Amino acid sequence: MTTLEHLIVALSLAKKAKRKDIKGNPFVGAIVVDEKGTIIGSGYHQKWGEKHAEVFAIEEALQSSNSLENCTLFVTLEPCSHFGKTPPCTDLIIASGIKKVIVGSLDPNPNVSGFTLLQQKGIDITLLEKPEAISLNKIFFTNHKKNKPFVRLKLAATLDGKIADYTGASKWITNEASRAYLHTHIRTAVDAVISTAKTVIEDQATLNIRISNSPSTELNAVIIDRTGTLLAPAQGAHPIFYSRVTTKVFIVTAPGAIDKNRQLPAHTEIIETPFTTNGEIDLDTLGKELLQKGLYSVLIEAGAMFSAYLLSKNWVNELDYFIGSKLLLDSNAKAGLDIAQSTPLQNAAPLTLLASMSFENDMYLHYAIEAL
Amino acid sequence: MTTLEHLIVALSLAKKAKRKDIKGNPFVGAIVVDEKGTIIGSGYHQKWGEKHAEVFAIEEALQSSNSLENCTLFVTLEPCSHFGKTPPCTDLIIASGIKKVIVGSLDPNPNVSGFTLLQQKGIDITLLEKPEAISLNKIFFTNHKKNKPFVRLKLAATLDGKIADYTGASKWITNEASRAYLHTHIRTAVDAVISTAKTVIEDQATLNIRISNSPSTELNAVIIDRTGTLLAPAQGAHPIFYSRVTTKVFIVTAPGAIDKNRQLPAHTEIIETPFTTNGEIDLDTLGKELLQKGLYSVLIEAGAMFSAYLLSKNWVNELDYFIGSKLLLDSNAKAGLDIAQSTPLQNAAPLTLLASMSFENDMYLHYAIEAL
Repeated sequence: MTTLEHLIVALSLAKKAKRKDIKGNPFVGAIVVDEKGTIIGSGYHQKWGEKHAEVFAIEEALQSSNSLENCTLFVTLEPCSHFGKTPPCTDLIIASGIKKVIVGSLDPNPNVSGFTLLQQKGIDITLLEKPEAISLNKIFFTNHKKNKPFVRLKLAATLDGKIADYTGASKWITNEASRAYLHTHIRTAVDAVISTAKTVIEDQATLNIRISNSPSTELNAVIIDRTGTLLAPAQGAHPIFYSRVTTKVFIVTAPGAIDKNRQLPAHTEIIETPFTTNGEIDLDTLGKELLQKGLYSVLIEAGAMFSAYLLSKNWVNELDYFIGSKLLLDSNAKAGLDIAQSTPLQNAAPLTLLASMSFENDMYLHYAIEAL
Repeated sequence: MTTLEHLIVALSLAKKAKRKDIKGNPFVGAIVVDEKGTIIGSGYHQKWGEKHAEVFAIEEALQSSNSLENCTLFVTLEPCSHFGKTPPCTDLIIASGIKKVIVGSLDPNPNVSGFTLLQQKGIDITLLEKPEAISLNKIFFTNHKKNKPFVRLKLAATLDGKIADYTGASKWITNEASRAYLHTHIRTAVDAVISTAKTVIEDQATLNIRISNSPSTELNAVIIDRTGTLLAPAQGAHPIFYSRVTTKVFIVTAPGAIDKNRQLPAHTEIIETPFTTNGEIDLDTLGKELLQKGLYSVLIEAGAMFSAYLLSKNWVNELDYFIGSKLLLDSNAKAGLDIAQSTPLQNAAPLTLLASMSFENDMYLHYAIEAL
């Protein structure tokens, strides 16, 4: 096997982890290969707070060989060099006698300088950057580089880009199969849905996961609600406050909007965030707060104004765009993503098409908005 | 073989014809099957003005058998019963002794009542309507049912439905691969491109077919130009008047806009059509005129207003929609298909997705707008 093939083996190990087990940690796989090219140790990071991939691989290798001096370690992400929830992997690598390391991607965390440290210790360490090793950890990289969750934004529009007719009616732009895919494949992939109080009140939305023939599944909801309207007495029975066991409704208000001593519905929490005088939310604060709540990956399902605001602030990583098989041909209908600005064509945000799928006559287009 | 399988054989024969040979005629295939299930005659309509499919099939069958009394004729389109460019096929069917006929689609021409005529003559004739037999002749059926060409409309927009930025710049919304597909697969499939004088003057458009590494190919152009601006002296060297051999520029003006005795550029012809006081063209007249010029299938490549007008008048059969991988997020940018009307969502025109393709990050979506 070539170096690249060994790295691909490590990558396929990394993918064995489950997001719900590793939480905000990265997917990492590692193998130890001896001088004959035999894989004598392998492993992957399995659970948040537990052993790193390198530890599994090296411990296994040490069972069949006392010295790993002639072995190479392949690891999909730069080894850690600090005491986090576990001791530094660099110590173990040095102690094992390994003299050669191949790394598939660098860790964005400035505390993790394992690459330089190992180099200084005389270990022959090479970065063989694999785009797949980066995209596998797109959530982790965004969390650490941008101090915010990985953000997907869902939009359902007619072919001519309208998300509602002139009366505001939007049921239904897309067909049942498109809506089912949203629940089965998109809402299930995130830690929370973000919406605005206006949208969830208008739509009487639960924002949970509904898959036909299964009971509905809980999903964290983050509701942008500057003045706390969702907590007004009239919203007492709002369906977003369904009986929750493992998830919460996070209501994002301006500081002081809701009395701290006030009794909240069960499984509800206030996140206080500054808003501008225009009513625009401070996204830097919101991003940090959401990470602290363990929401590493979120899905925006909101109205045109909030969606366009987030896009214009480069807060969105991926777009989940559904095209309903309809034409409204109506300038009075509601456009999906309009802001009164003047953008020259050469400044238009470039999109990278990740996937496209048809659902009967509807289309689903999955785009990345910015490079990781 | 079953009846359906025999019809599919006849359909595959029909498709052997070339559109440039049959011109406005339908694709038709036919086979004669004897009592043992053997195909003893087959044929397809090959050239405008020449033998029909049934004639080829029956003539071949008569070479191996004097009587076709126990044979069945399968024909993809209802046999003709009138003297057109050839004698009625119904006469030949009756003379051949055939007692059983299976037909794959009915002819929309009211002069073609072969089905009823054969029934009256005691022939056991059945319609086994195949959607493929209808879609194969979508151009022919539209020409005869609607008295207009089969109309495709091409649009290239950003994901948020903008065809130009706030300055009007539209070069380029889509990438090179998308634009190449327009030339290689869409312009090559029609008899003419229709545009407006405004668009061709702004874009200095030739509207010909450009395929990389090949010399450009001629294509008929129909320019909607109420007052004849394209014939103003300033446009003398407009690239649409390139040196043509087999095609024409048809300039559609209001009656009397251009002096009949005036000298026109070579291969240029005026089509006079009424316009309303709002400057809207009479589409019924235009449709008939274009058919008379032998333009059975056309492609609209025009601005937002004219495109939206044609769509709102149900003049368009199919949409060739390219999505450039860009977001403008700008309400000042030019929307592709806006008309100031108030369309409720339930009245939105339903689209049928015929095909979708990606060109790098761009998408091409091919839709049918109305049922045939």
